[in-house]
This record gives sequence, C-alpha cells and structure tokens, in this order.
Amino acid sequence: MKFYDCTTAPSPRRVRIFLAEKGISVPTVQVDLRNGEQFSPAFRAINPDCTVPVLELDNGTRIADIVAICRYFEELHPTPPLMGRTAEEKAVIEAWQRRIERDGFYAAMEALRNSTPGLKGRALPGSESYEQIPALAERGRARIAHFFAWLGARLDENEFVCGPQFTIADITGLVTVDFCGWVKLKPPEHLINLHRWHTAVSARPSAKA
Amino acid sequence: MKFYDCTTAPSPRRVRIFLAEKGISVPTVQVDLRNGEQFSPAFRAINPDCTVPVLELDNGTRIADIVAICRYFEELHPTPPLMGRTAEEKAVIEAWQRRIERDGFYAAMEALRNSTPGLKGRALPGSESYEQIPALAERGRARIAHFFAWLGARLDENEFVCGPQFTIADITGLVTVDFCGWVKLKPPEHLINLHRWHTAVSARPSAKA
Repeated sequence: MKFYDCTTAPSPRRVRIFLAEKGISVPTVQVDLRNGEQFSPAFRAINPDCTVPVLELDNGTRIADIVAICRYFEELHPTPPLMGRTAEEKAVIEAWQRRIERDGFYAAMEALRNSTPGLKGRALPGSESYEQIPALAERGRARIAHFFAWLGARLDENEFVCGPQFTIADITGLVTVDFCGWVKLKPPEHLINLHRWHTAVSARPSAKA
Repeated sequence: MKFYDCTTAPSPRRVRIFLAEKGISVPTVQVDLRNGEQFSPAFRAINPDCTVPVLELDNGTRIADIVAICRYFEELHPTPPLMGRTAEEKAVIEAWQRRIERDGFYAAMEALRNSTPGLKGRALPGSESYEQIPALAERGRARIAHFFAWLGARLDENEFVCGPQFTIADITGLVTVDFCGWVKLKPPEHLINLHRWHTAVSARPSAKA
C-alpha cells in the first residue's frame, strides 16, 4: 500500500489527520506540488486528474479522493469510529462533513486559487487549466465569513461538530479553518465556541500529522 | 419519517432514484422551489439552509444532504447494494460518485445558476444570496465538456461507472447528464459508450422517480 501525499497541502492533510486518529501508518510518497510534479508523466500514470491524495492498494487499485480514502480505512479499522456507527450517526456525520467541505473548504479554495499570482491558470485543481476569476475570489471570501458564522452557531450547541464525539467532520472543519488563514481570514473573536473548538482540535496530536 | 422533495429539481431526484432502486417508499412533502417556499419561515424551521432534499426521521433528526440520506437507507437496507459491500468497493464507488458530483453536477449548477435570468442573486443554492458571475457560467460549460469526455472514457472500459454493477455513481451521473440539458449541453455523438450507458440507465424504472 502507498499513500501519495504532499505535506504542505490541505487536501492530503485531511487524510493524514484521519489516519493519525486511527493510529494507522501507511508508506508515503511525497509529490512536489510546488514544482508541478503532479503534472509529470509519471504521476499522471498514477492519477490522470493530477491531484493528491491518492491511495494505492496492493492489488493496484487507486483511490484518488480524500473522503473515499478515509472510508476505506474506516471500514477496515472501525475503532475509533470517525464516520459513525449507526445508520443515523453515519448520515448525520456525512451531512456535516459534506456541508463543511462544500461551503467551507471549497470556498477557501475559490478565494485562494482565484487570487494568488502563483496560481494563474490553476483556478481549479485537476488536469485542466482554468483562468482566475477575481469576482470568484471575492465570493469565496464572502462565503467563508458565512461559514464561520454557521459553524460557530453549531459549536455553540455541541462540543464537536456532530456532538460529544470527535469525527471526520471536525477534521474537515479544522483543516478548513486553517486553510482560510492562507487568504488571511480568521474566525471573528466573538465566535467564542468556534475558537474553543479550534483550540481543542488543534491540540490533539493528530493535528500535527 | 418524511422526505422533503421537489419533483422538478435535480438534487432530490438523486435520492428518489436511489430509493426506487432499493424499492423503498417514504412519505413525501413537496416544497415549491419555483415560488420560493424554501425561504418561508416554515421551511427555514425544517432546514435553515433552505435546500431540498431533507429527510426527517421519526425522532426529529433531520438530514439535509443528498448522499447522507442515501447512506442512511443503504445502511438500513443494504440490498441491493448501491454504495458497495467491501471496503474497497465502498471507497471506489465513493470516489467516483464524488468526482461526478464535483466536476459534473456542480459544474452544471455553475453554468445554470450564473446565466439564467430567473436565478439572479441565486448563483448558489442555500440561504445566502450571491450574484451571478457570467465568467463562471462560461467556466461551468467548459467543465461540462471535460466531464463528458472523462466520463465517456470511463464508460469505454466499464458497463457502469464502477464496473458491472449499477451504483450511486450511475445515479449521480444520470442526473448530471440530464441536468446539463438544462443549459443545452449534451454529450457529443462520438462518445458512444456514454450514450450506450445513458440509454441503459434512463430505461431503468427508477429513472422516472
């Protein structure tokens, strides 16, 4: 088994934290995104979509998606559960994970990729080139402000995103809040429970993964 | 149990097809999206994010996410499996479902919502108002062309998206291809296996759900 990773990138960090919470170690191959190694013929043969993370199984199957990789390990190593045990828990956790990803993580990606000079022509990850749209960078920033507000409200009522247990939704949330810092956006001070939660999840050993 | 639906909308259709494939029937409440019922105080109390579908369980828990609702039913009614049986199948299906959703379904949404006069101020679903960005409509159209190409290539090698079995990835694919028709984009004729697949999945009784 091989895990194609890039230690500086937010997407594979979501998987690394998940694996650290599970206590799982996987042989890792670093892909140098800063120097465009993801577009090399060698890496295109691994993942034609030119993104990390990718998990390669011993039978050759490759899984090129953050949450799908987490699902694979959750199924094989269900303890500690990070994606729920019952049908209802699984559904609630998946709904929150997806909302944070769509309205938080993707918004941060919009803000960053449509404004950073070094990412011209790279407004979306993947094998295709898309030009930056400045209005989309602005929209991403507006969405992040909204994301902080509703995540804060959720954490006013819950210790973790989905209740008393740490789950994959907290991992997506932590990586997203940190990723927002790349475009210099931080949760406002008055969202005290968002800050309480961020301090707590950042202090877990897995956060350093 | 109650399913908040809108028969004309692509998002809840993904759940309806899933339920039809499982042979599951759930009491349904129609939400009139065309007349803005999703923004009414009554519906905001059901889902503050103002979107359908929503599944309400008998204990009051509400699940406001397409795939999370499917997951709930997959866990309770695993036959026929639509999200995989083994860890590897589950991961592969989730990866393809997510790629079709992100690079196909969301691209179609970008193209439609950023160009349709009736959707001014509604460039994204949800409770917040975002202005249309014409360049984003164009980008959505470019992404759809790319989506058709890679989905077609996948179907050159596989009967269904994930192999010999129909899965949730086919449901997302079918609804996405049909949704692209809303912005007058259809798969090019030369993608014969994409057409072969689309004809086959459209002919299943579930496609009418």
